Amino acid sequence: MSLEEKTLHTEEIYSGKIISLQLQDVELPNGKTSKREIIKHPGAVAVVAVTDENKIVMVEQYRKALERTIVEIPAGKLEKGEEPSVCARRELEEETGYECESIELLVSFYTSPGFADEIVHLYVAKGLKQKENAAAPDEDEFVNLEELTLEEALQYMKEQKIYDAKTIYAVQYLQLQEALSKK
Amino acid sequence: MSLEEKTLHTEEIYSGKIISLQLQDVELPNGKTSKREIIKHPGAVAVVAVTDENKIVMVEQYRKALERTIVEIPAGKLEKGEEPSVCARRELEEETGYECESIELLVSFYTSPGFADEIVHLYVAKGLKQKENAAAPDEDEFVNLEELTLEEALQYMKEQKIYDAKTIYAVQYLQLQEALSKK
Repeated sequence: MSLEEKTLHTEEIYSGKIISLQLQDVELPNGKTSKREIIKHPGAVAVVAVTDENKIVMVEQYRKALERTIVEIPAGKLEKGEEPSVCARRELEEETGYECESIELLVSFYTSPGFADEIVHLYVAKGLKQKENAAAPDEDEFVNLEELTLEEALQYMKEQKIYDAKTIYAVQYLQLQEALSKK
Repeated sequence: MSLEEKTLHTEEIYSGKIISLQLQDVELPNGKTSKREIIKHPGAVAVVAVTDENKIVMVEQYRKALERTIVEIPAGKLEKGEEPSVCARRELEEETGYECESIELLVSFYTSPGFADEIVHLYVAKGLKQKENAAAPDEDEFVNLEELTLEEALQYMKEQKIYDAKTIYAVQYLQLQEALSKK
């Protein structure tokens, strides 16, 4: 069965700094119609970065949507036309002060396919080196650097300090690498 | 340093069937002001369900935001006041026709903390039993059932048929369980 939903009409409700919102009338596979609320997002990158001391580099950040801080792997939105790996190096450096020798794509994924087209490109950075000068996030971005062992990160998950999709995926990835290395 | 952003003003831009959109003026930690675009979402559940034949239960679903189908673990939005584990059993049954003996919370996570408060409660279902009558999704929901081995799921990830946060987390979780059981 074809599952496609044809667009009958698109209404632009809002177009903002980061996201925009569309309301679409669609034709369902059975010929009936329905409405879809869709958020357009430029996409983002995130970085798994582990130091020579085997600490995972993270940032504590206030998330207004959640009205609290959470601890996340370094991440940020793609600028228009920006190559994701360039963005990943930039965000790592801006948020944490770490440069890296190499950076490689691990996986890309949609965060909320039910209502948003946001995609996250998740990178693994190798060969970290702390820069002399401090980190310089965006002017409306304030973060605290945290460096966690894998055990500490798992504890943070239990305490719901680590609480978002990209970061729990990253922590589980490092758990998996450890489990595979011990086989 | 306190990272809190105080709300100065909230404007409701849109309130819809599933999501709503707010534009907030906030005071940053340095006293300056900025704007935050925030999507409110009722939250969702998702289910890791593995059959007696060691197949992962998934559904192919058209995602209008992506203009394509992807293959996902069973999932759905929370109804108002609904207990997440009840919702998880319901969505598993409606989308796949499988009932389960037990269902246990694995982890909860925010999908897009930068702009949305959507939380996903991810459950593991045990003791699957296919019901006699066919699956009955919502009236505007059309899905195809897929049952995949772990190897097939990993191949689907490479082919970007599996392409969303909850599902790649679930696949990696099963990989981790397999790696740990072989230690």
